[in-house]
This record gives sequence, structure tokens and C-alpha cells, in this order.
Amino acid sequence: MIKTLVSDKPCAYDGTQLQAHWIYNNFGLLGDAVVAFTGEVNVNLDKMNDLIDVHRKEAIYSPLMLNFIIEHFNLDLELAIYRQLLFMTLIKEELDKFEINVNRMGDDLYYNKGKLSVSVATKSNVSTLIHVGLNIETAGTPIKTAGLKELGVRDLNAFADTVMLRYKRELEHIYEARCKVRGI
Amino acid sequence: MIKTLVSDKPCAYDGTQLQAHWIYNNFGLLGDAVVAFTGEVNVNLDKMNDLIDVHRKEAIYSPLMLNFIIEHFNLDLELAIYRQLLFMTLIKEELDKFEINVNRMGDDLYYNKGKLSVSVATKSNVSTLIHVGLNIETAGTPIKTAGLKELGVRDLNAFADTVMLRYKRELEHIYEARCKVRGI
Amino acid sequence: MIKTLVSDKPCAYDGTQLQAHWIYNNFGLLGDAVVAFTGEVNVNLDKMNDLIDVHRKEAIYSPLMLNFIIEHFNLDLELAIYRQLLFMTLIKEELDKFEINVNRMGDDLYYNKGKLSVSVATKSNVSTLIHVGLNIETAGTPIKTAGLKELGVRDLNAFADTVMLRYKRELEHIYEARCKVRGI
Amino acid sequence: MIKTLVSDKPCAYDGTQLQAHWIYNNFGLLGDAVVAFTGEVNVNLDKMNDLIDVHRKEAIYSPLMLNFIIEHFNLDLELAIYRQLLFMTLIKEELDKFEINVNRMGDDLYYNKGKLSVSVATKSNVSTLIHVGLNIETAGTPIKTAGLKELGVRDLNAFADTVMLRYKRELEHIYEARCKVRGI
Amino acid sequence: MIKTLVSDKPCAYDGTQLQAHWIYNNFGLLGDAVVAFTGEVNVNLDKMNDLIDVHRKEAIYSPLMLNFIIEHFNLDLELAIYRQLLFMTLIKEELDKFEINVNRMGDDLYYNKGKLSVSVATKSNVSTLIHVGLNIETAGTPIKTAGLKELGVRDLNAFADTVMLRYKRELEHIYEARCKVRGI
Amino acid sequence: MIKTLVSDKPCAYDGTQLQAHWIYNNFGLLGDAVVAFTGEVNVNLDKMNDLIDVHRKEAIYSPLMLNFIIEHFNLDLELAIYRQLLFMTLIKEELDKFEINVNRMGDDLYYNKGKLSVSVATKSNVSTLIHVGLNIETAGTPIKTAGLKELGVRDLNAFADTVMLRYKRELEHIYEARCKVRGI
Repeated sequence: MIKTLVSDKPCAYDGTQLQAHWIYNNFGLLGDAVVAFTGEVNVNLDKMNDLIDVHRKEAIYSPLMLNFIIEHFNLDLELAIYRQLLFMTLIKEELDKFEINVNRMGDDLYYNKGKLSVSVATKSNVSTLIHVGLNIETAGTPIKTAGLKELGVRDLNAFADTVMLRYKRELEHIYEARCKVRGI
Repeated sequence: MIKTLVSDKPCAYDGTQLQAHWIYNNFGLLGDAVVAFTGEVNVNLDKMNDLIDVHRKEAIYSPLMLNFIIEHFNLDLELAIYRQLLFMTLIKEELDKFEINVNRMGDDLYYNKGKLSVSVATKSNVSTLIHVGLNIETAGTPIKTAGLKELGVRDLNAFADTVMLRYKRELEHIYEARCKVRGI
Repeated sequence: MIKTLVSDKPCAYDGTQLQAHWIYNNFGLLGDAVVAFTGEVNVNLDKMNDLIDVHRKEAIYSPLMLNFIIEHFNLDLELAIYRQLLFMTLIKEELDKFEINVNRMGDDLYYNKGKLSVSVATKSNVSTLIHVGLNIETAGTPIKTAGLKELGVRDLNAFADTVMLRYKRELEHIYEARCKVRGI
Repeated sequence: MIKTLVSDKPCAYDGTQLQAHWIYNNFGLLGDAVVAFTGEVNVNLDKMNDLIDVHRKEAIYSPLMLNFIIEHFNLDLELAIYRQLLFMTLIKEELDKFEINVNRMGDDLYYNKGKLSVSVATKSNVSTLIHVGLNIETAGTPIKTAGLKELGVRDLNAFADTVMLRYKRELEHIYEARCKVRGI
Repeated sequence: MIKTLVSDKPCAYDGTQLQAHWIYNNFGLLGDAVVAFTGEVNVNLDKMNDLIDVHRKEAIYSPLMLNFIIEHFNLDLELAIYRQLLFMTLIKEELDKFEINVNRMGDDLYYNKGKLSVSVATKSNVSTLIHVGLNIETAGTPIKTAGLKELGVRDLNAFADTVMLRYKRELEHIYEARCKVRGI
Repeated sequence: MIKTLVSDKPCAYDGTQLQAHWIYNNFGLLGDAVVAFTGEVNVNLDKMNDLIDVHRKEAIYSPLMLNFIIEHFNLDLELAIYRQLLFMTLIKEELDKFEINVNRMGDDLYYNKGKLSVSVATKSNVSTLIHVGLNIETAGTPIKTAGLKELGVRDLNAFADTVMLRYKRELEHIYEARCKVRGI
């Protein structure tokens, strides 16, 4: 069962957090887990995992993001991308409840053509890892962005908690669905 | 690349369509494919794949549904369930464009507490298979349901086509995401 | 997390219990599970899964066995055989606590050259399944056997419960070991 | 078929031996293999693979151990852990023959609350690797330990050889069991 | 290590031989194996595994073929198709030594536009299976064919033996290649 | 669908080209791809991936080779070796059309006991990679070699293009074969 934690301690994200066992080493959660934390996000090209972004020299900057790091001790990168899409969908569905209607395009969320999110799924040699960042503030971002603050999401911890809980429930539902079906 | 087809010929769905190579044998599409067709849906308990439904004796009936059969020549049932969730999400997102806001609960879609959809993902010994049915009409359904007709979706073929096209693009996007990422 | 159950209701075992979802259909446990029950065991050649035994025409009979059915919703038959060996080892280690020293030879347990157990691991199209039977009584068995009764194991339910609990803990330990290790 | 070798040349173990192809590069055995050798064991925290031990700052030291390095050219880390458990079980069963009764707790062996063994299973990018060390002598170990010498195992080469032979036979048995079973 | 056998007893092939454990049940070879035998080949549409052939109503008939049945206890159907292609390549290379130059088109061999072979790779629930048939005689075949007899291959047993030996060696070579390579 | 490219720009090969995303980073082809280019080949022992060659101190040198780099975003190294064998077979079959009859021994091609090719298949943490080099010129090679120039293959680009096209078609054929077969 996946473990979840909202960290109270702010933490800047520069890409080096997306590595195997970072969650265990920093928060003591062993096994599949999601951790949420806020902090400045500043990923230089040499730390970017998305080679198309590297090629276009599109580094990532945000003055303040709500970040999620997800680690699954499973090596299937394609599966990790499906999980990433599911997680983005859950964020979108949770924002719907605040009557904030965002568009999902692949693994990105947009509000009024402002980019709300950054996200990547990758693989270490013992796990797959996902980073999702949602802008809270947007001053100084290199492209047009939208932020949770201006959209009116005030209790970020509660928001993060709910999204992670929904993710946990979806994973349980998927496991049940896997087990309840008769093959043909 | 997944092949897609909207069949003009109505076809009743009784559960026996959810088998390996049904798409190839009936439409000549070889390989991963999605086919859409309309027809009455009437699945008796002994043809149900969801054992929880069997246990609860909840057979499926709808006078007219827009059906999708998806077949992937891959044996990972968990992956098939992620694909099923993605497909349901795409239907929901497409309905959003018609300003029809449905709720997704796991692999089910609801409009105003009326159940819009039935869905199951299962596995044959050479492939994984997904059935998705969306009520068009709802007379005689055993539970409270909603239908595409009353919701104002008139051109069902165009709707089906768009959903399948979005699915195809998402799969391409997932493949690209899998290939563009640097491991860690 | 694997679910465990000791069934109070005796149940004869003839081989047809070793099928996908038998545990769910009979005990309502969905997902990976182990169920223990006592009953006569009488498996005819056409129900045997072990083809070497079929070839040798060695059908299985015991007047009363403590049976375990284990189902994992995972398709790796080799892994299932490792799990079967682990389960046999746990039975042996638990018997050690009663100062009953049995020999393990592959997936069989012997006491004083009397065969204590039968066991097989196999695969359905959605899961892997293991049957383990331990003789309680031995009258009428076709070969020299040993039984838990004569060995002095009186509280069979408690014994079954402890073995299943140990199995559950080992699986948790294995999951932790999988997640705590740094790759190289 | 797994290759086995008892090395006559003592070799200190500091953790760097647990890497892909170390067996091939040092002993010329290509493919799945187990090698046994004796030597001092001294693994600093930065070479430890078990992150829980790293977290607890529990480095490993023994003045003299009987070491086994096992390499399988298969990438399934969970399977490697099952193999590790099997190997520990075989050591325990072999010690039983010397009337030395040890307790197995997960992947550790204890004699009279003295720790007899260290062990870890990990993964390189082409293989899975297991290290097992059994104390021969125990002077200077940081915790209460037991050693093969005091337990009366004198011919360490013969002991190592027998354990590895049993492992080889178990692997053959598992392969046979995989192949002889009728699916359901 | 794959086992090989040339059977002296002629055996007609009607498609029912291509099933799990047919080799074990008939020849006593347990595990991965190839068996060669000669016999009439007559596969009706309902026994054909290739659905394109079924669709085109192209049943298989040959008065006398040299047949190979290959079984691998591995469930990867794509891998089985690569093995099938390798086996066809080995036949072609062996015929080259007789100065008989055939063309390989996918998994078919042609001599002078006469079809020399039939072949299919498929999957049971415990193994993958390959059938390869090479015409020995060609009277009455429904299409233009070529046969080993007219091509001058007289000692069919020796031919079959050599092809199977080459297959065995290639598999050993592939295993070595898998184990000798440093990852990057 | 695999992408193919013949590069006009010569490029020396020293082993560092055989890494994940080298094709994307240099040619902009994202996903499974094959690229062909000519250049000197000079691989020092520390860049060699084949440890048997490293052990024998057999470094690679050729003054001019036609090189192919193949990348599949799939992690199955055994499958990569089957693909490598298939690729070598396709080169051999294409040379047959020029009436140049080479011998394939494992993954090597020989003409008149002169070695025509070098080849290795390996694995990064996101993909499998294959290098194939065919001597064009042979002056200064450390062993007896044969080269495409002396064999009369003049239009190297056309030759490379055809081989890659054949590879693409074989992969499509394999996919079709995977999808058209009825399981048993």
C-alpha cells in the first residue's frame, strides 16, 4: 500500500531530488510512496530528464511550487507514465471541485493557456520516479503560467493530502480490478 | 500504431464479443485496435467478467449503447486497467467540450448520479481486452442511468471517432514520453 | 497485503479447488490470499497438475489433510514455485518449534521416511496457485506417510494460522528487502 | 546450469566484490554462477547496499568469513530475494546435518542469539547479485555473533561445496517443476 | 539446455500435436525441447493457428513432411517468433551446405518459387510452441511446392539432427552473449 | 515503427556512440531507430562491451566501416541479441543478392575466412543498443578481414538503406505474426 506524506519543511527542487530512495533517505518512508512539499523549482538543463526540453533549451523555473515526488519500486517505465497521467487527472478532477477548470494536454495542465504544471516520469535502476510540480506563485517564470494561489487554492497541505489520498485509492481500485476479473 | 474504426452496422453486445481476435475476425483489423459500434447490451451473469458483479448478481442491460472494444496484444492486465482508466478519462474530457460534466469514479462515469457507462478490462491468452459501453438510451435499465441522447450528444459516430483519435494520440504521446526520458 | 483465513467448514479436496478465484468465490477474499481447511484429499489422475505423477499413475489420496490454497494474482510460475518452497520451509520451521524434525526434499516434507505432504504450484490465466496438503490422518494412503495427528500437532487451526502469519510476514519482509536495497 | 567454484585463494570482502561480472573477471566463470571464498569482511557504510543498515550506521565487520557471491543474469530483484532466502535455508538445512540448529529470521541465521550471517541481494544493470557471509571467527565483531569454527564446522571447503551443490540441485528442481506442471 | 530428439516413428501432423507438453507426453523429454519426425501433414481450418490463413481458407496439406516441434517453457510470444525466424535461418544455412539455395521470406522458405516450408509460432498457457514442416514429397499439395527429396536431401535424420544441433548451439551462444556484455 | 536514417556525415566510432539517446541527440530521431554511417572504427579495451574480448585483449580497429547503431526502447537484452542475429542474417541475405556468399557464425560474418563484421548488443538503463560494423576497407586491421569495397559493394548508402528497410519490414512481420496467431 503506497505511503503518503505532506512535508511541512519547504525544500527547493533542482532535479537532484528525483532519485532512487530520496524519499526513504529524507522522510524514512520505505517502499512505494508519495511525498508533497513546497519550494522554489529551478532545474538546469544538465539536470533535466526530458531530452526534448534539453534539446529546446527549456529549463524549468518557478518561484514557488507544490511538488510531489512519487516512487514505485517497479521498473516498468511505460507503467510509470500511465501512473503519471493518472496523477495529473486526479489533480484536474480535484481542481474541478474548486470550480477551477483546467485542461490536460498529455501530462501538462493549463489554466487559460497558462501552464500550471511541470512533470516527468523516469527510471532509476531499482524504481520508477515521477515529479509533479504545480505553480503556487508565478513571478519570473520563463513562459506564461498559472498558479494555485491566484486560482484560489489556499490550503495547499489539504489539497496535496486529498490528491495523494485519491491516488492511493485509485491504486487500490486498480489492484481490485486486476483481481476480480475472470480471464477469457 | 493502434487502428480505429467506427462500424456502421449495429451489433448487439452480450459479452461474447470480448474475446481475442474478435476485431480481426469481424472487421479485418490486425493488431492493436479499437472498434466502436452501437447496439443493445445484454450480458447475462454467466458471461460477466467482473466477479464482484457476478457475486452481487448485477447483470448488465441497456436498450442502446455506444460500445468500444479495445484489444492490445500485450498480456499485462494491470496495464490494461490503466489504459481503461485513460480511455474513461478521455470520454469525460470529450464530454466536457459539450459542457456535459460527468463524474468519474474508478472506471465508471456518472451524470447526476445516473450511471452513464459500463466497462471491464480482461485478458485472453494472447491479448488484453477492454469493453466500454455508454448508454445512448436508458429505457428499461435495472438501475438509474443517464444516456448520451438525453445529454445532447447527437452525432455518435463523430463522438466515437474523436474519442478514439484522442486515445491514439495519447498512446503516441506515452510512447514518446517513454523514449525521450533520460534514466537516472 | 496477502489475506489469510482458516475455514471452519471441512471441505474435501479433489483438485478442482485449485482454480482461479476459488478463494474469492467461496470465502469472499479478493486479491492475494491463503485459505486453510481440513478434509479428505482424493485427486484422480485426470485432475493432477503434475505430469510426472500422471505419467507414473501416482494419484493422491489421504483420509484427512490440512490443506492450504494460495493464490497470487501474478503470472510468473517460476516465482510461484519459489513461494511454494518458502511455504514448505515455513511449515518445517514451525514443526521444529514442536520439536518435530522433518526433512524437506524439494517441495516435499518427510518425517522418518513417511511422506507428510503433497504440494503443487500451477498457473491459471490470471493468477498462480499453490496447493499444499499435510496429512492429519494416514489410514489408506497409497504410500508410507506421516500425519500431524500422530506427530502431536493437536490444534490444527492454530498451527495453520501461525504458518499463514509467518508467510504473510515473509512476504512483507521480501517487499521491504526489495525496496531498501541500493542498486549497483 | 549454474556454475560453482570454491576458491582456494583468500580474498577480503569490502563490498566492491558485489558487482556485475566480478565472478567472470576473477574466476573466468561466464554466466550464472556461485563462488565461495574465505576472508576478512569489512564493509564501510558508503559501500553498504542495505539502506536501513546505512541509516542505522551499522557497518559490517568480521575477522574471517566464508563468503558466497551468487550472480544470476536476470534482472528480477524480487526473484533474487527469493533465491537468497532459499540459499539461507539450504545453509540452515546443511548445518542441521552437523546437528547445529540455527534459527532463520528473514535472510539472517542465528545460533543462540549470536548472528552467524550477513546477506544482501541487489541488482546491477545486467544481473542480480547476492552476497552471503558466514562468520568463521568472531573476534572483534561489533555485535554478538557466532562462528562456524566454534560450531565445529571444520572442512569449510567441503561445507561450501555441499551448500552450492544443493543450490544447484534446487534450481534444477525448480526448472523441472516449472516444466512439468499443467496449467489450469 | 534444450533437449533434442529425432523420432524414428512416423507421425501424421494434424495440428493437435502443437500443444503444451506434447513432447513430454510422447517422448518423455521434460523441459525446453525440439523433436523431429516425418509424416503426412493435414491441418484443417479449425486446427490452424494462423488466423490470416484461416481467413483466406488456406488449409495445409503435404503428403510427407519433415516436422519439428519446438517447445520453450517461456511465455513471450514475440520471443518465440524470433526463435522461429532463427530456426528457419538455420535450415536455410544448412541447405546452403548442400548447395541448395533457398529464399527466406519471413518465416517461409522457397526454392525456385516453390514453397518448401510451413511454420507457425504460438503460445499455450505454460509455454510457447513452434511447428516447422519441410516438404519431403509434394504430390497433391494445394500450391506450388518444393520438397527435400527432389532437392537431394537423402538422409533426413542426419539433416534434422544437424539443424537441431545448430539450434542448440545458437541458444548457448545467445546465453553467453547475454552474460558477457557489460551494460552501459 | 522503427525509424531509419543513412547519415551522409562520416563519423568515427570509438564505442562512446553506443549509448542511450545517442541517435536522438545527434540525428533528432526519437524512439526505436537505426542509423547508418561510415567512419574509422577504433575501440579501446576500456570501451569494449564484450568482456570476453576484453579478457583476450582483442581491441577493435578498422580504417573504414559501414556502421549501424540500433536502439530499441525495451530492456530485454536477450531479445536484443535475437534482433542482432536477425540483423546479421539480413546483411548476409542482402549480400547474397550481390552473389557475395558470406558465412554467419553467431553474430559474425566471414568471407573466405576474413572477418567482415564486428557486432555487439548491450543495454542501457532505458534501452537496448546494437552496434554492427562492416569493414569497407581493411588496411591495418589486427586480424584477417574482408571489406565491402573489395567484395564489390559500391553504393554503400543504398546497401545500408536496403538492409535497414528489410529490418523494418521484418519487425512489422514479427508484429503481425504476434497478432495473428490463436493461442492454444
